[in-house]
Amino acid sequence: MTSPISYAPELLVQTWFNTDRPMLLSSLRGRVVVMAAFQVLCPASIAVAIPQAQRIFETFAPDDVTVIGLHATFEHHDAFSTAMLKAFIQEYRLKFPIALDQPNHAGPIPHTMERYKMRGTPSLILVDRHGVIRKHAFGAVDDLRIGAEIGALIQEGGQSVALARSSAA
Amino acid sequence: MTSPISYAPELLVQTWFNTDRPMLLSSLRGRVVVMAAFQVLCPASIAVAIPQAQRIFETFAPDDVTVIGLHATFEHHDAFSTAMLKAFIQEYRLKFPIALDQPNHAGPIPHTMERYKMRGTPSLILVDRHGVIRKHAFGAVDDLRIGAEIGALIQEGGQSVALARSSAA
Amino acid sequence: MTSPISYAPELLVQTWFNTDRPMLLSSLRGRVVVMAAFQVLCPASIAVAIPQAQRIFETFAPDDVTVIGLHATFEHHDAFSTAMLKAFIQEYRLKFPIALDQPNHAGPIPHTMERYKMRGTPSLILVDRHGVIRKHAFGAVDDLRIGAEIGALIQEGGQSVALARSSAA
Amino acid sequence: MTSPISYAPELLVQTWFNTDRPMLLSSLRGRVVVMAAFQVLCPASIAVAIPQAQRIFETFAPDDVTVIGLHATFEHHDAFSTAMLKAFIQEYRLKFPIALDQPNHAGPIPHTMERYKMRGTPSLILVDRHGVIRKHAFGAVDDLRIGAEIGALIQEGGQSVALARSSAA
Repeated sequence: MTSPISYAPELLVQTWFNTDRPMLLSSLRGRVVVMAAFQVLCPASIAVAIPQAQRIFETFAPDDVTVIGLHATFEHHDAFSTAMLKAFIQEYRLKFPIALDQPNHAGPIPHTMERYKMRGTPSLILVDRHGVIRKHAFGAVDDLRIGAEIGALIQEGGQSVALARSSAA
Repeated sequence: MTSPISYAPELLVQTWFNTDRPMLLSSLRGRVVVMAAFQVLCPASIAVAIPQAQRIFETFAPDDVTVIGLHATFEHHDAFSTAMLKAFIQEYRLKFPIALDQPNHAGPIPHTMERYKMRGTPSLILVDRHGVIRKHAFGAVDDLRIGAEIGALIQEGGQSVALARSSAA
Repeated sequence: MTSPISYAPELLVQTWFNTDRPMLLSSLRGRVVVMAAFQVLCPASIAVAIPQAQRIFETFAPDDVTVIGLHATFEHHDAFSTAMLKAFIQEYRLKFPIALDQPNHAGPIPHTMERYKMRGTPSLILVDRHGVIRKHAFGAVDDLRIGAEIGALIQEGGQSVALARSSAA
Repeated sequence: MTSPISYAPELLVQTWFNTDRPMLLSSLRGRVVVMAAFQVLCPASIAVAIPQAQRIFETFAPDDVTVIGLHATFEHHDAFSTAMLKAFIQEYRLKFPIALDQPNHAGPIPHTMERYKMRGTPSLILVDRHGVIRKHAFGAVDDLRIGAEIGALIQEGGQSVALARSSAA
């Protein structure tokens, strides 16, 4: 069985945090991209997915892996504000770039979430060095498994895995 | 800086558990080998390393990754017995092959532990598809990092990572 | 050394959730009251204090212990809204009464937080069957310790501890 | 419904650790006694019950609460030795008195375990200040609940709860 190759579409973003300029996937060719979609009022996002995204950000070398957070406001629209997301990022001391998904005036699902056909939050998407989506998971993913998948995608490029704090052989 | 290539020496074993025949590293070429050295009276071995070894065993496909436990009796010799290790394996429901390191009549450090120059337990050793030692860690190693290293070693062989229960792209 | 007895003042509340009528401490004489002050953008509140408040609510008999949550909006005022708190309570499936502390037009600290001289969130306050404050803690409190203090306050009334699901002797 | 009062029988002990002299329950009147029965090859004993016993030991004042460990060798007799228990206590840095239950030549269940009708390990027994058994639990018990029960038993004596490191009101 083969799946058609699916290139990761660009994010449609209302506001970026923790980055001076918008992140373009087309500019990230050559790196593995980990996109962690979350929602600040989603318990599993806060307890599991956000800490894991932060661990991934701290574990891998920036030249190998780029972590991008995506706040997908697909419910509780009346409870959300940009100020709230900004305060959240500050309180949880997140350092990786985070995009606020662009609202969709035609319905509750924001544009990037719709474009990626995410089923909810947390969702985790892995994009390889060529821009192809290689994993699209909904719900919690364990560290060992996601670590293995990221490590394999890094290695595909023929480069060895450089960890931020490497362990000697 | 380059390190000399270090091939993983064969284990010197008093007794094997969970396997009908002795495991020879030379017979495991083509697979990544994860060797988890532990001691049943070492708290970090029991709380951290053994559950992690079991997770690795359950996560990766047997054709890609072989997990081997090594009980290194380097202290508390008077407290240890083969019956104790057997009961431990049964109670903790461990399913991967486990070797009892061969005692060394010349001193407290058993033969395999000495041969691998392990500093204590837990120790974790990664061997690539060609039999070369690629990681040699003492103490706890986090799941994300070890996952990445295993994933990269699997991928080096040119094969994509097959997880035991794979997540769809 | 003796401390002067300090009766727990009534809460000053903007909005109540999970209760049909305002909770008056004067009406709760005869019960131990556990007040858990939190803030939805405070990581320790969400990771530690709110789950603990929920466990306390589920562990003790309602005739012995009343749990009250207090959302103290003392920072991130621009990020907060009543709709956000309502969505939070729903998503985290909290069932105990929760008060939104009354804003203070003279400064950032809301009225109940000021009245109780809380230092921040999370804060935990224990009130005995006579309405006297018996514990006032800032930060995380471990379950064993808070369990012991609640158990002792229940017992002070001469009544034995009735747990929601009791364990037989 | 009423249960008959059941006084805690003395322990029948082969060897004591961490105490100069045998602990007699009759000498502990006036204190709450927490007896934690365990087995070194029982996973739940090691992962849950032993760390909890250590927390109880560290949390309560010695004048209020005495913690006693009981190693009940009711299975894996061939795997057990006194040297193993001694090494275990040293490696896990346990500081409370621990009794090795007296073997029973008539069967696998040692004498204290039989006398207390324990169903297995871990078991937790609470004895009040008068020597009466007030709780007899098999399996894991959560900290909040056991804390509440110990706190109530301390308070029954009319004394207020003195925690090892108390939190100010």
